[in-house]
Amino acid sequence: MTFNEKYSEYTDKINTALEKAVKISDEITYRAMAYSLLAGGKRIRPVMVMACCEALDGDMELALKYACAIEMIHTYSLIHDDLPCMDNDSLRRGRPTNHTVYGEAQALLAGDGLLNLAAEYISGAEPHNAEKDISAVSHLFAGSGALGMIGGQADDIFAETHEATKELVEKIHHRKTGALIRAAGELGAIAAGADAGYFRDYTVHLGLAFQIRDDILDVESSAEELGKSNSDADNNKATFVSVYGLEEAKRRLEEETAMALDAINPLGEKGQFLRDLADYLLKRSK
Amino acid sequence: MTFNEKYSEYTDKINTALEKAVKISDEITYRAMAYSLLAGGKRIRPVMVMACCEALDGDMELALKYACAIEMIHTYSLIHDDLPCMDNDSLRRGRPTNHTVYGEAQALLAGDGLLNLAAEYISGAEPHNAEKDISAVSHLFAGSGALGMIGGQADDIFAETHEATKELVEKIHHRKTGALIRAAGELGAIAAGADAGYFRDYTVHLGLAFQIRDDILDVESSAEELGKSNSDADNNKATFVSVYGLEEAKRRLEEETAMALDAINPLGEKGQFLRDLADYLLKRSK
Repeated sequence: MTFNEKYSEYTDKINTALEKAVKISDEITYRAMAYSLLAGGKRIRPVMVMACCEALDGDMELALKYACAIEMIHTYSLIHDDLPCMDNDSLRRGRPTNHTVYGEAQALLAGDGLLNLAAEYISGAEPHNAEKDISAVSHLFAGSGALGMIGGQADDIFAETHEATKELVEKIHHRKTGALIRAAGELGAIAAGADAGYFRDYTVHLGLAFQIRDDILDVESSAEELGKSNSDADNNKATFVSVYGLEEAKRRLEEETAMALDAINPLGEKGQFLRDLADYLLKRSK
Repeated sequence: MTFNEKYSEYTDKINTALEKAVKISDEITYRAMAYSLLAGGKRIRPVMVMACCEALDGDMELALKYACAIEMIHTYSLIHDDLPCMDNDSLRRGRPTNHTVYGEAQALLAGDGLLNLAAEYISGAEPHNAEKDISAVSHLFAGSGALGMIGGQADDIFAETHEATKELVEKIHHRKTGALIRAAGELGAIAAGADAGYFRDYTVHLGLAFQIRDDILDVESSAEELGKSNSDADNNKATFVSVYGLEEAKRRLEEETAMALDAINPLGEKGQFLRDLADYLLKRSK
């Protein structure tokens, strides 16, 4: 099976499960949640959960449950990030942003609803495994919380009105994007019954590489190509490109990717998909 | 020990634990979270968790953990509810609202952070009990989610632009306030190792009585007395008073309180605090 076929196999399962999870009500909040959750993102975080679990021959049904939860959290963060009081973006995943369609108040609630649903889903959906499930809640919400992703968003706001230093950019990226990507590796490891930190080095370097690629794409691509507003420069965002320059950013991207690959050497053949995934993230065009 | 002494004993423990839980960082998001979480609310929901658990001779350390989590969720809902795109309130718990002090973007993140922290806290804080903890996450987040409290907030927005019927008001109150009060009873029962639904009738009737009292206070008291903006009429909110009239609202308040009391008759002397609590909620002036 090629990398693309395997990636599609994962995303098909993820999309089917997400649709089932969010289409349990026809109320407006659920419709607004479904609008963003089922808008067809790349599903990188949930794919990582599945792939990390499979590389360790773990419980793939449990991995699918955790994979859905992390995508719910990622999607809520996009909805809130796009709100007028945050980045005020109008385009996301190739469609009008949530608040553009449902209004600010309802978009706020849809975001709250998706963050909340991640906890409901891990604790309430099949299959159940109390020990692994509570560990999954702990690691996922530590990654997405105020010392993780939310803290990174706060740093991001801070950076808009302060000088962007290299230290600040690395700190923002380590938390704003990195924390949830590290959590993806943790969830995969937990589903496999392994130590939660098993994929730590892989995910730390891959998370940084992922964000550097995002920053490069923001200056090199059009909004149409990206499917979202490329608003970093407009919003005076601190990015890798703005503090290191384009060439150095590209060098760091290669370097971080190489370190991610090194970290999974011990997996041998079972790590092939994770290697291809790093390569895909390095070269992606949106 | 009098009711007031016992209530203070509970709130002292809750406030100490909440302070410890949120003062783990000096970052702005944690400071904004602490600003609202430690603003000295009545702590009704966490007190109910503690009291329900104690009435069943349950594990009070576990109850304290769940009590803190429910107050985090209640506080996040207040921060988001007060935002300009929602009720646009300036006064809460006798102080300027979160966004008035920290700005809209940071208040949004503080709310997200507290909702997130509730999951982190149940799964990460001592004491640990995987089976009970995952059940607590499930019941708490079902109550606070898009079919519970968040759904009630969406109904509330809907009601501002639609005719307020008795059915709509009952539905809003059942979810917007009721769902989290039912969750308080569930958390107390879970901490005690009892069936999660043990206090269902008590909490359903008490939750409704609580909200009716709130609606009455909103028309009979000043903002200074309430410590929050009494903005229901200004915002064209659907309330018990607006659809039933003041006298009928007062009659229903008595009736719902009586039904709550009936439901805990079987507890005998062990139910005394819960009886006094119902009485206190019926007569409270803020």
